[in-house]
Amino acid sequence: MKMRFFWLLSTIIIVTSAIAAQAADPLSSWNDTASKKAIITFVEKVTIPGSPDYVPPAERIAVFDNDGTLWSEQPLYFQFYFAIDRVKELSANHPEWKTQHPFQAVLEGDMKALATSGKKGLVELIMATHAGMTTDEFADIVTDWVKTARHPALNRPYTSLVFQPMLELLAYLRAKFFKTYIVSGGGIEFMRPWTEAVYGIPPEQVVGSSIVTTFEMRDGKPVLVREPKVNFIDDKEGKPVGINSHIGRRPIAAFGNSDGDLQMLQWTMAGQGARLALLVHHTDGKREWAYDRESHIGRLDKALDEAQAKGWTVVDMKNDWKQIYPDR
Amino acid sequence: MKMRFFWLLSTIIIVTSAIAAQAADPLSSWNDTASKKAIITFVEKVTIPGSPDYVPPAERIAVFDNDGTLWSEQPLYFQFYFAIDRVKELSANHPEWKTQHPFQAVLEGDMKALATSGKKGLVELIMATHAGMTTDEFADIVTDWVKTARHPALNRPYTSLVFQPMLELLAYLRAKFFKTYIVSGGGIEFMRPWTEAVYGIPPEQVVGSSIVTTFEMRDGKPVLVREPKVNFIDDKEGKPVGINSHIGRRPIAAFGNSDGDLQMLQWTMAGQGARLALLVHHTDGKREWAYDRESHIGRLDKALDEAQAKGWTVVDMKNDWKQIYPDR
Repeated sequence: MKMRFFWLLSTIIIVTSAIAAQAADPLSSWNDTASKKAIITFVEKVTIPGSPDYVPPAERIAVFDNDGTLWSEQPLYFQFYFAIDRVKELSANHPEWKTQHPFQAVLEGDMKALATSGKKGLVELIMATHAGMTTDEFADIVTDWVKTARHPALNRPYTSLVFQPMLELLAYLRAKFFKTYIVSGGGIEFMRPWTEAVYGIPPEQVVGSSIVTTFEMRDGKPVLVREPKVNFIDDKEGKPVGINSHIGRRPIAAFGNSDGDLQMLQWTMAGQGARLALLVHHTDGKREWAYDRESHIGRLDKALDEAQAKGWTVVDMKNDWKQIYPDR
Repeated sequence: MKMRFFWLLSTIIIVTSAIAAQAADPLSSWNDTASKKAIITFVEKVTIPGSPDYVPPAERIAVFDNDGTLWSEQPLYFQFYFAIDRVKELSANHPEWKTQHPFQAVLEGDMKALATSGKKGLVELIMATHAGMTTDEFADIVTDWVKTARHPALNRPYTSLVFQPMLELLAYLRAKFFKTYIVSGGGIEFMRPWTEAVYGIPPEQVVGSSIVTTFEMRDGKPVLVREPKVNFIDDKEGKPVGINSHIGRRPIAAFGNSDGDLQMLQWTMAGQGARLALLVHHTDGKREWAYDRESHIGRLDKALDEAQAKGWTVVDMKNDWKQIYPDR
């Protein structure tokens, strides 16, 4: 009897401890594979006082790409769907778009014709939908769109297509006094209206591409007007430039998923002391999308080679992540 | 006897309280004039929970001009002295400068000739001294200069010519969970190496003018190279643009001293809720410099009119500040 009671008590203690340990796991959507270990090893190295790799909190800068790293990006960048939705909405005031490339292709849903419009067509589309209003007006338009728009294939809000394991990683780093930044090729003002609610990243920690804005007085009220002219492209070689301009410190950790992030990872890893470079490899065709070297969106080719050569962490989405999107 | 003891006790209490109150005054270098009262009234209004004007900490953004607002700017902007010192240092490798405008004027100390070189000459001087190296190299050059250079008239380090009342104001706002930013016409990378030590403002909270930087691989190592080309001028209409780009939120308090700050103050005051706009008026020819509407450096003319018309706070340096510079 005494023995059985002891056994029962032991079992209760073991089970309770296991539950507590699991509840306390800040990366509970990550399987216990090499990627998770690499993250935790790095974070402990730079945060435990007395560690030879200790980094003071003010210098714990972590930079995250957005498209394909924090949320999905297939079959098209979500900002592109925003542009498409805007063209449809604005077309009532633009009857000429019915026969004008690339607007005609958008209105007819002809993605093949749209693809042939190339970079020039894309820029035209962006300018027609992202410029010609004040910054406050644009923020309202984005806020409304994020609330109501649905991904065409999955019929879910775009902001529900964020990666649960990455949300946990952001929270884990912030709990360890990291400052988490987005450094994305996407539009800086397209992201800022919702990144705080979705990722816990405030507007001043969002770096992205931008168009020219100019200060104007309208009816005695100062406004910033969005002009149809590219100001800065925060992609590839632009990412370290954007980091330097906005943050002015070299990050100690960088997270990306494509060749567009290669220079950001190189720039991060070239600093002194312990560093972490991580690539999200989209290997899960069932739960998300599987693509890499041949993809037009989020191509991962050169950066994958460099990651393998230099021993950077490569997340295998299919095997490293228990869950892709947050529970609804 | 009893009465005298009571009197003694009261005196001790009153004196002790007065000392404690003085020690606790976060703005002890400010005289008890309208400016100090306006600052404290505003800060209490937006920070006391339950106040109708309460602003949550994340939105307590305060922006400060640098030249003439946080440190002196006479008889020339201090960054200009940096350029002059650099020309002298680099001239050994540039024998052609001896007869080449505007370098000749600098080397001969001919400020009159230099003044005639205008904006074109100034840009030439800036590019010759601020470009052509990596961002890391430039940061080292600035750090060395700040340590060793002396103001020609006062023979003191430039970073000792910061305003003690403004240092107190920065600390007071941060104690009330404001995020303090510099938004200056000066070079962003000229300021970042020393603003944290001098003002407690980290690099990511410094906004300024910039030249183009480009990402390059040198001997397999990524670097950012400073190019001799203007990227962004963070002055006048540029200040709200820089604020929008770097912060992405509208400040609730703005501090400047010249017409170059007018649009920043207008932009700040045009937001909803309680706001503070403050101009430092250089009225103290004895302890600092006295200048306003006619000055070539830090001209305060239109902004002074607007401040008077709109009831913005104007600091009268001579009467509002007990002390100008910190004790040595």
